Amino acid sequence: MQDLHVGFIGLGIMGRPMAGHILRAGYPLTVYNRTRSKTEELASQGAQVAESPAEVAAESEVIITIVSDSPDVEEVVAGPKGILEGIKPHSVVIDMSTISPEVERNLDEKLRAKDCNLIDAPVSGGDVGAQKATLAIMAGGDQKVFERVRPILEVMGKSITYCGEVGCGQLTKLCNQILVSLNLLGVGEALTFARKNGLDPHVMIEAVKGGAAGSWQLSNLGPKIVERDFAPGFMVDLMQKDLRLVLEAAAAGKASLPATSLVRQLFCSAQAHGEGRQGTQILAKIIESLASLDQ
Amino acid sequence: MQDLHVGFIGLGIMGRPMAGHILRAGYPLTVYNRTRSKTEELASQGAQVAESPAEVAAESEVIITIVSDSPDVEEVVAGPKGILEGIKPHSVVIDMSTISPEVERNLDEKLRAKDCNLIDAPVSGGDVGAQKATLAIMAGGDQKVFERVRPILEVMGKSITYCGEVGCGQLTKLCNQILVSLNLLGVGEALTFARKNGLDPHVMIEAVKGGAAGSWQLSNLGPKIVERDFAPGFMVDLMQKDLRLVLEAAAAGKASLPATSLVRQLFCSAQAHGEGRQGTQILAKIIESLASLDQ
Repeated sequence: MQDLHVGFIGLGIMGRPMAGHILRAGYPLTVYNRTRSKTEELASQGAQVAESPAEVAAESEVIITIVSDSPDVEEVVAGPKGILEGIKPHSVVIDMSTISPEVERNLDEKLRAKDCNLIDAPVSGGDVGAQKATLAIMAGGDQKVFERVRPILEVMGKSITYCGEVGCGQLTKLCNQILVSLNLLGVGEALTFARKNGLDPHVMIEAVKGGAAGSWQLSNLGPKIVERDFAPGFMVDLMQKDLRLVLEAAAAGKASLPATSLVRQLFCSAQAHGEGRQGTQILAKIIESLASLDQ
Repeated sequence: MQDLHVGFIGLGIMGRPMAGHILRAGYPLTVYNRTRSKTEELASQGAQVAESPAEVAAESEVIITIVSDSPDVEEVVAGPKGILEGIKPHSVVIDMSTISPEVERNLDEKLRAKDCNLIDAPVSGGDVGAQKATLAIMAGGDQKVFERVRPILEVMGKSITYCGEVGCGQLTKLCNQILVSLNLLGVGEALTFARKNGLDPHVMIEAVKGGAAGSWQLSNLGPKIVERDFAPGFMVDLMQKDLRLVLEAAAAGKASLPATSLVRQLFCSAQAHGEGRQGTQILAKIIESLASLDQ
């Protein structure tokens, strides 16, 4: 049995397997989820189930949250029956949601007023990474606090990077999303160009993927696009939330990102076509459709 | 000694080492270059030096060309004292320049009228790839003809891909350039975002490069951008030529490529600043400058 009692709030497609890894690593675990039925499997494996985030906090030294968006984290931490109402001094909240860096800094201030700390630690790697404990975790916050909770992060991820002060985990995750979406935009334009000019797209991908044109997006999503497989690894609607966070933080930092703005508009087109719950690779179909009025 | 006599036209930064590999592989070699002094080293190693492309063609069964742009290839093949004036029936021209697919198709027609063929076989991998014979070669043309000359291509490259009919080598190379430039645009926006928001850019690159955000451009040019090293691997001016070819071929194929158009405009800005002979990674500096009026 590990010495730290862990709380876990948010048992969605990511949170459930992540909480399972913590339980199996021997940490005493208390969980909370708005929809209580999602706690049942973990309860049967030995987790305690709390009635509120405040109750989770009262039981735990480390409280992990992974929910959808900034307002959800604010609600869970600082809302009625939230973490702040139950938390004990010297506890640590690890927020693994992808949300605004600014919100993380504000919540950290509130936690510090109670002699507690926040670590922002968003993840990359999707539901498969959550299940296999191969997530990339990008963490921000006080470095000593980070080192104290690192063993817990290592239970859930393969690559754990300390990125700087509170908010730097989120900022790094947002860089990740800029790269992911613009690499995918390149794949979409290259495949559209290939298709419209009569190239065999599989041959094109094989010819270029090993060199300077290579990317994870090309190797992994390129073939899916060619096969017209638009099932989500990562959904358009979630990418749009992340790109909104990117452009907000870019404005705050006075960075001008023309291509990220463009790709966000193209994803808006996917959403307008009712494709928001498709995988991000639907972007290629949107680019094809730009030149299809005459077909 | 190999049985085919090879001609080589265009002894620039790419052509010279490539011709050297052919000579060392045992092929009898006749070379031509507009600036004759560039033939001297190869001549001292046993190459014959011709006075014109026509004379090269008269001596050779396989004639390789690697020059700058479409008009240069047209001049060398179909201009006065060009290849067409000296070529023997059943010879093959391998054009390894990056030029218009349409021009390759036109030249192939002229060669077929003399019972000859054209293989378009542009390369990726830069001067280092030319020196180490590790180029990626993307070939288009009659497949039987391609198989006949493949051993010669293998002397110069590591990955040789047959992409389809004449022009398909160029189209594949242009896909490569779409991917390269848009992946680089992603790197530029991510690093600008990181820098303006106070992230350590090296830490950001390390945190994300192994996952879905990973690309050759990020791993290889990202650190150079952080170190403010803008020395050319591949020059902006040459990329602009290639992106012009992309947009011409996109228009011909009725593909609409908004992000490729954008990145070409951003490279135009680099050229306007007098940075056309810098490496393509200068793009990151252009993106930073978009938000620097207030600095």
